[in-house]
Amino acid sequence: MSIETIDAGKEAALVLSEEEIFTAHEGGKLSVSSTVPLNDKRDLSIAYTPGVAQVSRAIHAKPELARTHTWAERLVVVVSDGTAVLGLGNIGPSASLPVMEGKSALFKSFGDLDSIPLVLNTTDVDEIIETLVRLRPSFGAVNLEDISAPRCFELEERLIEALDCPVMHDDQHGTAVVVLAALTNAAKVTKRELSGLKVVVSGAGAAGIAVAEILLTAGVEDVILLDSKGAINTGRADIAADPASKKAQMAQRTNPRGISGGPGEALQGADVFVGVSSSKLDEEHLKLMAEDAIVFALSNPDPEVLPEVAQKYAAVVATGRSDFPNQINNVLAFPGIFRGALDAGARRITPAMKLAAARAIAELAEEELSADYIVPSPLDARVAPAVTAAVAAAAE
Amino acid sequence: MSIETIDAGKEAALVLSEEEIFTAHEGGKLSVSSTVPLNDKRDLSIAYTPGVAQVSRAIHAKPELARTHTWAERLVVVVSDGTAVLGLGNIGPSASLPVMEGKSALFKSFGDLDSIPLVLNTTDVDEIIETLVRLRPSFGAVNLEDISAPRCFELEERLIEALDCPVMHDDQHGTAVVVLAALTNAAKVTKRELSGLKVVVSGAGAAGIAVAEILLTAGVEDVILLDSKGAINTGRADIAADPASKKAQMAQRTNPRGISGGPGEALQGADVFVGVSSSKLDEEHLKLMAEDAIVFALSNPDPEVLPEVAQKYAAVVATGRSDFPNQINNVLAFPGIFRGALDAGARRITPAMKLAAARAIAELAEEELSADYIVPSPLDARVAPAVTAAVAAAAE
Repeated sequence: MSIETIDAGKEAALVLSEEEIFTAHEGGKLSVSSTVPLNDKRDLSIAYTPGVAQVSRAIHAKPELARTHTWAERLVVVVSDGTAVLGLGNIGPSASLPVMEGKSALFKSFGDLDSIPLVLNTTDVDEIIETLVRLRPSFGAVNLEDISAPRCFELEERLIEALDCPVMHDDQHGTAVVVLAALTNAAKVTKRELSGLKVVVSGAGAAGIAVAEILLTAGVEDVILLDSKGAINTGRADIAADPASKKAQMAQRTNPRGISGGPGEALQGADVFVGVSSSKLDEEHLKLMAEDAIVFALSNPDPEVLPEVAQKYAAVVATGRSDFPNQINNVLAFPGIFRGALDAGARRITPAMKLAAARAIAELAEEELSADYIVPSPLDARVAPAVTAAVAAAAE
Repeated sequence: MSIETIDAGKEAALVLSEEEIFTAHEGGKLSVSSTVPLNDKRDLSIAYTPGVAQVSRAIHAKPELARTHTWAERLVVVVSDGTAVLGLGNIGPSASLPVMEGKSALFKSFGDLDSIPLVLNTTDVDEIIETLVRLRPSFGAVNLEDISAPRCFELEERLIEALDCPVMHDDQHGTAVVVLAALTNAAKVTKRELSGLKVVVSGAGAAGIAVAEILLTAGVEDVILLDSKGAINTGRADIAADPASKKAQMAQRTNPRGISGGPGEALQGADVFVGVSSSKLDEEHLKLMAEDAIVFALSNPDPEVLPEVAQKYAAVVATGRSDFPNQINNVLAFPGIFRGALDAGARRITPAMKLAAARAIAELAEEELSADYIVPSPLDARVAPAVTAAVAAAAE
């Protein structure tokens, strides 16, 4: 078995052998090291006893010194219960760990932040919150990852209240920030105003709801959320039956034209399709979209529609894959968002900080803007510092 | 303020300035890095999506792969609630963190094991256990640290039952192992049998009780534990009143001659004094000890008696300090004990493994054995590999 990604004709196909992947994962992907030398008595006396006692005593007397003289306040914990891992679903905490290690590695490589994975043997929201509250002195920020909807909404909301440090569910907001950045530039390329776009978001899980929310916050007025039962609106029986649910809340704020039905109804005349579910986008539905349509088919590894099909009807096409143009990848957002929040000493990651992150990402692509370049590459070294600066400024 | 340690005439005095210590602690003492490159698309595709999904899927199908393809099963968590930190007492989790970071750094430097500190905002034994059970998939071993007695005994015992991985409270067993190693060699230097020694252990907290236990396990028959109320024996009212306590259990197993009273009574004719409390050892009590006495005055930074005083009456003197000969330092033991247990895939750290560790440490000092050299230096690079090998062998 091998993973093959066809490289849109631009590069040689990227073929990863199973052996290569498993060899890279042997022993895990993270390593902890000391930032101070431990070679002689003097080193030990500084880093450990008796010297360390002075630092402990000082923090005890003046607790804010923990921010500057421990690693905790700059440490991001990547927390998962393994219930919604990549496209694999509920595979449990141990099997999710390689993903979380990868995420921690990305925090270091792109945000220069230390990060450790904490995977939990419980899926109970109360217990997850309780666990992190008990561990609070050990870390400085929480990146929630691969936690299934709708639990992820309640978990994030309550954790933000329970902890006095930045907390963000990246599957929601990292995705939302990058989608907003990409859509800002796609609107520019197609010479439209963001606020006037008719947007259909396919998928009302963690990513879909957060994308809809950030678009509303950014001024987009006509957003329709689609789930497996069709367009979300206040009239749907299942939505009305659970008025406290996130979907019911979103039904109040989206779908201003009161559309009901499936993709066929929702996509009629729509300017934008954002796919964040695994459902397919039929070519016949694509045909219904407005001229110069924008299609973000973000499911991984299989997009809702292949770019070569979408391009027949759309002016701008993006996916989540590195082997097509316009890769919408969270790594553009999360390292800089957390770094900026921590640099600013922010207790919360606010909507203003997320909008600032999206703007910073969009601006970096502006100079060379085209239908095939609406966001910078995830490997563009300018991105994390720019997002960091923008988020830190917005935090103040 | 500065910490000055007089170097027993051997080396220039070690003077540490406050500035030097605090500068070394800025930003904390640990760093996490990726063990795999993350420089291009191919790297990202291996360490993160899509490649990582193959590893996650494989672990889901075959859970034992988590042992080899994540970092968790080799990761030692250093866990504290900050209730008994060095000589500082109950200073809380945040103030304890520099010590725990130091410990994690030592695990890496001496045992080549990754380690992270987890400091807890609770001192409730049930809650600490519950928290670690929930986090179980995140780590491979637990080093309990600086947790006050008697809670530490219950916590360790119950955690060993609750977790299927090595758990050790280092303040108990690390200390005990090194004391046993040192005493084995001190007996050799003074030409006595270990089993025949009359030993007084001053301090019936975590370290004192563990020292008494390992000495009994190693065959020492006459051990007396002293606490602030004097010799522990079954007749003492406070002991009889709490028969489930660790002290009451030890009263059953120690003090075979039924000594009551204070240090004056206990030390009469004793061969060995092991001090692991902050109480002082009076010179008049020293005089009561047997000829060729052995004195381990292990309180830090102020030993129960200064070596120059103890040497007037004792043939062998050891302390916990690096500036006197015979430094009894846990770092001789814990890196190799955990490394050996993990190398062997052991689920528990057994008494046999602790005895093997003590024997390995003692053997390394045998060639050059003298009254001033009963244990190797904590910086001796031979120690951790020897302890690792001995512990791993004893685990099988």
